[in-house]
Amino acid sequence: MSVPEFEQITLTLADRVLEVRLNRPDRMNAFTPVMRTEMVEALDWAEANDDVRVVIVTGEGRAFCAGADLGGAGDKPFSYSGDGMRNDRSDADEIAGLPRDGGGVVTLRLASFPKPVIAAINGAAIGVGITMTLPMDIRIASTKAKFGFVFARRGIAPEAVSSWFLPRVVGISQASEWALTGRVFEADEALRGRLVSRVVEPEDVLPTARAIAREIADNTSGVAVAATRRMLWSQLTQDDLWETHKLETQTIAALKQGPDAKEGVASFLEKRDAVFTGRLDTDLPDAVPDWPVRPAAD
Amino acid sequence: MSVPEFEQITLTLADRVLEVRLNRPDRMNAFTPVMRTEMVEALDWAEANDDVRVVIVTGEGRAFCAGADLGGAGDKPFSYSGDGMRNDRSDADEIAGLPRDGGGVVTLRLASFPKPVIAAINGAAIGVGITMTLPMDIRIASTKAKFGFVFARRGIAPEAVSSWFLPRVVGISQASEWALTGRVFEADEALRGRLVSRVVEPEDVLPTARAIAREIADNTSGVAVAATRRMLWSQLTQDDLWETHKLETQTIAALKQGPDAKEGVASFLEKRDAVFTGRLDTDLPDAVPDWPVRPAAD
Amino acid sequence: MSVPEFEQITLTLADRVLEVRLNRPDRMNAFTPVMRTEMVEALDWAEANDDVRVVIVTGEGRAFCAGADLGGAGDKPFSYSGDGMRNDRSDADEIAGLPRDGGGVVTLRLASFPKPVIAAINGAAIGVGITMTLPMDIRIASTKAKFGFVFARRGIAPEAVSSWFLPRVVGISQASEWALTGRVFEADEALRGRLVSRVVEPEDVLPTARAIAREIADNTSGVAVAATRRMLWSQLTQDDLWETHKLETQTIAALKQGPDAKEGVASFLEKRDAVFTGRLDTDLPDAVPDWPVRPAAD
Repeated sequence: MSVPEFEQITLTLADRVLEVRLNRPDRMNAFTPVMRTEMVEALDWAEANDDVRVVIVTGEGRAFCAGADLGGAGDKPFSYSGDGMRNDRSDADEIAGLPRDGGGVVTLRLASFPKPVIAAINGAAIGVGITMTLPMDIRIASTKAKFGFVFARRGIAPEAVSSWFLPRVVGISQASEWALTGRVFEADEALRGRLVSRVVEPEDVLPTARAIAREIADNTSGVAVAATRRMLWSQLTQDDLWETHKLETQTIAALKQGPDAKEGVASFLEKRDAVFTGRLDTDLPDAVPDWPVRPAAD
Repeated sequence: MSVPEFEQITLTLADRVLEVRLNRPDRMNAFTPVMRTEMVEALDWAEANDDVRVVIVTGEGRAFCAGADLGGAGDKPFSYSGDGMRNDRSDADEIAGLPRDGGGVVTLRLASFPKPVIAAINGAAIGVGITMTLPMDIRIASTKAKFGFVFARRGIAPEAVSSWFLPRVVGISQASEWALTGRVFEADEALRGRLVSRVVEPEDVLPTARAIAREIADNTSGVAVAATRRMLWSQLTQDDLWETHKLETQTIAALKQGPDAKEGVASFLEKRDAVFTGRLDTDLPDAVPDWPVRPAAD
Repeated sequence: MSVPEFEQITLTLADRVLEVRLNRPDRMNAFTPVMRTEMVEALDWAEANDDVRVVIVTGEGRAFCAGADLGGAGDKPFSYSGDGMRNDRSDADEIAGLPRDGGGVVTLRLASFPKPVIAAINGAAIGVGITMTLPMDIRIASTKAKFGFVFARRGIAPEAVSSWFLPRVVGISQASEWALTGRVFEADEALRGRLVSRVVEPEDVLPTARAIAREIADNTSGVAVAATRRMLWSQLTQDDLWETHKLETQTIAALKQGPDAKEGVASFLEKRDAVFTGRLDTDLPDAVPDWPVRPAAD
């Protein structure tokens, strides 16, 4: 089926798996305001489209994403949270009177996205190139990939909401070592530090990501997956376990009224593959929290 | 000494270690409303009994617990948070007008339990079979064990308060991969993912659990252990470190007035084994928080 | 340059790396009220001194720190949060009418410290000897080091705010196993459990710590590092990601007005080493949170 076309990213949809390819290979897929906007629009489209069950994000060429484009070859330089954003999208949201940090625009969109996202890290993932993946669900890396939370070496601070995500993904001590040294490190260190869950040969990165995408698309209920994803993330900030218990009780009771729980049990008892027909727009229980919630007024 | 007798679980007490055996081997110890109620009653008894220092939970036969009993062989099917609960215990608490999720009834009871609980996972631990162990303190698995957070494959959502516990036990990324794929996985993956702390041969599962139980029962103060367990869990939801500092200052000062801190220091200086005589009912400091707290009104 | 002199700790400053050596080798560097006060004063001095970029903490002789000094050889015994504190520093803060837990005085000071701290654990680190390191950023251990969260074996409870720090550093399950058994364990178990990030031969402990200190001092902006350290820790207790996004947006925008972000980008584009001149007292953005915040009144 047809997918939207963009300037700096390329979308491919096959058998309910959407691949989003960062596509500025001559710039090592460096992040720009255009890319930020296109990522958000691609995710908006993927959320609304029932034919998309799982998203894979990868990079064209030898890099995944070399970080914010700092200019240097005649391109308009990227200015972090500065004017570059404003020029690009006149309706860009401001926060506290400033253009919003561009990486954070993407990661907050990913955080609220109701479908699994797999990062297929084919090469260098530096700065926003790696922080953008933190709210993704699974990170697979090439043996040739390199990583760096390099902010302290550029005189700036964590972005893309990574000061929230990074300690939760890898633990506060590992987060501190990487962010305070600003070190660029190899895939084996990323694996030991639990930043990625698998390191494979370069030619196996996409096939591995696709196999996991198939595992999800072929075996799970999209409604159940959306509820699960929001519940896991949102309960990270839940201080009252009774509220979690209430949420789970209500969500499971509501899901049981829909088609997928019935099919799930029936297929299990009949020892056959399930065929789930639930839809996000009609079958996702009200109890499932929107997450993260943007305050009504700021 | 005598222990309570139940229909679906079996208790054995020896030398201050209580073993709780899930005992429906013909159904792979599948979880039922009866088992839920019996687990809570067994924990109530174990909390009140000074002869119990540590609890081990294991399964009879080849499985640990194959999940909620979905019926299929003439048994009354388990209905998640549905009517099965109501039939079983007329005074079952409701939450938001619904029967409480049964797994959550057990895990919240485990969370507030003041003594260490060790899961000796002798075989398959699927669905609530593994989520019930998340608030336990130590998980030991057989090389033959299998695991699965299979909810998304049944069309439902995380239960047993696992949307709170799982990301805290294994980290949000590992939690996401397991819960979003619904994959059934082997013991080595559970070990790599830090779901279990040790994998041993099947015949070594119980001996390993018993050795750790002995390590605790023979060397520690039950009062200090109860305080420690509640402090570690409760401070996971503490956003103000000054409050933690205050809690620790008050708790240590109070413990120093009791018998176990005196014996702890004296035995250390005299290079002999300690003989702790403190009791939970009289020597646990007031400052130690009840946790998790159920709201007075809901 | 000259450094302050103390009785129980020794300071050495070379090339912007300050080494703090616990110096009671005949007592295995056991922690005392004097040591507590000296540690705080050393950190106060190090924070205010622009020549200090990184701090290394290590122990003189064969131990790192064998825990609170419980007396035993004619010394005044250490009394946890008791009178020993009061005797030592007449203006010691009280909390809830009690002298503050001494370990917590040190760890809260470390938590608010704006420069990286590396623990070079050269030998035994028991009780407060290991809990004092939890708010440090990187822990390197000798193959000869031993560790123990031994409180339950002494009849007391976690101190040094470790009931908050330990589960966040190593995860709740590993924290529980170590704290509930009170077990003394070897360096390889500490590494597997992610309490330390590297285990090296005894003669390599300090060189390894110094190499990491150099990596930081030679390549990063001190202002960016201070902002990063506070952002990572403070956002652990942030329940609203929009607030994190706002903090990052504001901090990065403010840093861009200072010298280090300009130098960071310029040096990157010019492929040369950066020379950062930013100062904590003038260039740290207002948006960066003080952390942890002590309540105005208690």
